[in-house]
Amino acid sequence: MRRSMLIAASVLGAALLAAPPLLADELRKKAADVFKPLPSTIPAIKDNPITKEKIELGKALFFEPRLSASGLFSCNSCHNVGTGGDDNLETSIGHGWQKGPRNAPTVFNAVFNEAQFWDGRAEDLKEQAKGPIQAGVEMANTPEQVVTTLKSMPQYVEWFTAAFSDEKDPVTFDNMAKAIEAFEATLLTPAPFDKYLNGDDAALDEVQKVGLGLFMDKGCAACHGGINVGGNGYYPFGVIEKPGAEVLPENDQGRFAVTKTADDQYVFRAAPLRNVAVTAPYFHSGKVWDLKQAVAIMSSSQLGTELKADEVDAIVAFLHSLTGEVPRIEYPILPPETATTPRPTAEIVTP
Amino acid sequence: MRRSMLIAASVLGAALLAAPPLLADELRKKAADVFKPLPSTIPAIKDNPITKEKIELGKALFFEPRLSASGLFSCNSCHNVGTGGDDNLETSIGHGWQKGPRNAPTVFNAVFNEAQFWDGRAEDLKEQAKGPIQAGVEMANTPEQVVTTLKSMPQYVEWFTAAFSDEKDPVTFDNMAKAIEAFEATLLTPAPFDKYLNGDDAALDEVQKVGLGLFMDKGCAACHGGINVGGNGYYPFGVIEKPGAEVLPENDQGRFAVTKTADDQYVFRAAPLRNVAVTAPYFHSGKVWDLKQAVAIMSSSQLGTELKADEVDAIVAFLHSLTGEVPRIEYPILPPETATTPRPTAEIVTP
Repeated sequence: MRRSMLIAASVLGAALLAAPPLLADELRKKAADVFKPLPSTIPAIKDNPITKEKIELGKALFFEPRLSASGLFSCNSCHNVGTGGDDNLETSIGHGWQKGPRNAPTVFNAVFNEAQFWDGRAEDLKEQAKGPIQAGVEMANTPEQVVTTLKSMPQYVEWFTAAFSDEKDPVTFDNMAKAIEAFEATLLTPAPFDKYLNGDDAALDEVQKVGLGLFMDKGCAACHGGINVGGNGYYPFGVIEKPGAEVLPENDQGRFAVTKTADDQYVFRAAPLRNVAVTAPYFHSGKVWDLKQAVAIMSSSQLGTELKADEVDAIVAFLHSLTGEVPRIEYPILPPETATTPRPTAEIVTP
Repeated sequence: MRRSMLIAASVLGAALLAAPPLLADELRKKAADVFKPLPSTIPAIKDNPITKEKIELGKALFFEPRLSASGLFSCNSCHNVGTGGDDNLETSIGHGWQKGPRNAPTVFNAVFNEAQFWDGRAEDLKEQAKGPIQAGVEMANTPEQVVTTLKSMPQYVEWFTAAFSDEKDPVTFDNMAKAIEAFEATLLTPAPFDKYLNGDDAALDEVQKVGLGLFMDKGCAACHGGINVGGNGYYPFGVIEKPGAEVLPENDQGRFAVTKTADDQYVFRAAPLRNVAVTAPYFHSGKVWDLKQAVAIMSSSQLGTELKADEVDAIVAFLHSLTGEVPRIEYPILPPETATTPRPTAEIVTP
C-alpha cells in the first residue's frame, strides 16, 4: 500500500517536474529566500522576558477553566494542544452556547505571526490573550473577576510572585496575559519542511517538492511566506474573484472593523499555514473542510488561476510537510478554589 | 504563619484528645479495620485486561472532544484531571448549554467505587463511560456516530487494533468504553492518609488524627469507609433529618429511579471522599461549596449529631489528608479528522 503510493507519487512528481525541473539545490535556495525554518530556541518576546516560572504559570492559566465566567472554557478549549492547537469547529462555541464570529486559529507557532486574530487587531499574544476572556460570546469574564479569582487561590499568588518577582502586586490581568504569552511561545512544532529548509533533502518526497515549487511559482508564497508560511501581511479575500457568501459572509468585513479604511474591506491577515493539514475547517468562516478545496478556492479567488487536479494534490502534499511535532505537555495540576473564589455562573448577561 | 498554624493545631489537637485519647497504634489499628490504603499497582478489572496499548488509547479517548456531537466536550471537560478529576461546577454544562441533573463526581480512584453515578446505575467504569456520551444534556452523541467518527481516522483504527488485537472488528463502542476504563483505572491518587495507613505516623498531624478518630467515632465511617472512604453502599440522604430542598431537591429521588423501590427514595451512593477537599461543590445537587458546611449537614442529617465547631474543623483537617498526588499525564496528540469524519453540530435535537 505504502509502496504503491510512493510509486504513484514519484510518477506524479516526475510528470509535473517534466516541465521546467529545478535542481534540488535551486529549489531549496529559492525556498530559503521565501520561507524561514523555525528557530531552535524559544524566541525573545517584546516587553516579556521568558522564564521557566512564567512558562509554568502560563501553562496553568492556559488550561484554567476558571478564567471563564462559566468555569467551562479555558484557552485550551478552542486552542486545543491535542488537535493542532485549534478546535476543529467552524467557529467556536462559547458562553451560553453562542457561536464565535470566526474560526479559531491555531496557537502553535502563533508567536511568529505579525499580529493576532484574523484581522490583526491584537499586536501580540499577550494582547490576544485578553480578548476571548472578555468576549461575551467566548469566556464572558471581566479583568476584575479574573484577578479576584486568581488572588483567591494562594497557589496562584505564589506562582505569580515567582514569575514576576520584582513587582509589588504581581497578580494582574496584564501579567496573566504575559504568562500565557510565555507559555504559548513554547508551542513550536518543527516540521519536515524545517528539516528540508535546514538541508535535509529527504525530508520532503518528490511530490512535496513539486508542490513546494508550485506554491512559489503560482504565487501562493507571495502572501504565505516567512517563518509561519503566512501570518504576516493583510490581503483582501477575493483579490481577483470574490468567493461565494458561504465562504466569505458579507457581514464580516475583516480588517475594515479595525482600521475603518475602505481599502480594508474584506481584508484579512494571511492565514499562517503551519499545521494546516490538521486544522480544518478553513478560512475565517470555517466553511471549508477539504484542504484541496481550500487550495482551489485560494488559487481562483486570490490568483485567478485554475489549478489542475494534480497541481492541487502536489500543493496539498507540500502543505502536509508543515505538520509539525507537538511539544510534550504535561497536564497542569491547578490550584483548588477557596471560600473567596468567585463561583461560576452559566447565566447569560445581555449587555 | 505556618508555624503559628501548627501551634494552634497542636493545641486544638491536645484539647480534643484530652477526652479519651487513643494511643497512636490503637487509632491506626481501628482505622485499618475501616479503611484500606490504595494499592501500589493498577487494579485488575473484570472483563477488561489492562494493557499499555489500552491505557494509551483510553487516554486519547478521554481527551477526545469529537466523542461529543458538538466537538466541544470530552470526558475531561467534566472530569478534569487538573482540577481534582471533576469540574468545580454545581452541575455540569452540556450540549446546548443544558445543565446536567447532578454534580459530576471525580474520576480519580473511581475504579474502586462499588458502582458508578450517584445512583449506582452503572456497574463499572466501562458502563459509566457510555452514559454521558449519549446523554442529550451532556455530549449528545450516539454509539453509531462515535464508531463512524473513530473509524474515519486511520490512527484510531491502528490504536484500537493494537489494544484489541484478538478482535476482528476492534473499533466498537464497547471497546471505546473499555479503553477509557483502562485509562481511568490508572488515575489513582495516593494521599497522606495512605501513608498513614501504611504505617507512617507523621503523615497526619495531630488535628488530622483527632479528626480521623471523630470520623470513626461519630459514625461517618459507617458509610464512608473502605478504600475510597465511601463509594460503596447506598443510603438515604436525610436518615435522621432531611436537609432543605435547596440541598436535596425534591424532584431528584436518587436510586428510586433505578430500582423503583419505595425504600430507595432519596437514596444515593455514599460519596467517595478521596480528594474531597479539592472537589467542591458538594452533594449530588452541588449546592454546598464549603466543606465545613457539608460536614455539618452530613452530621445533622445522617447522624442526628450537632458537631462542635472544633470537631468539624478536625474532621475537615482529616479530610484534607485524603487529597492525593495526581499522576503525571502527558496531553495526548489526537488523530486528525478526515473527509469521512462526521462534522460537529451544535444543533439541539429535541427528542
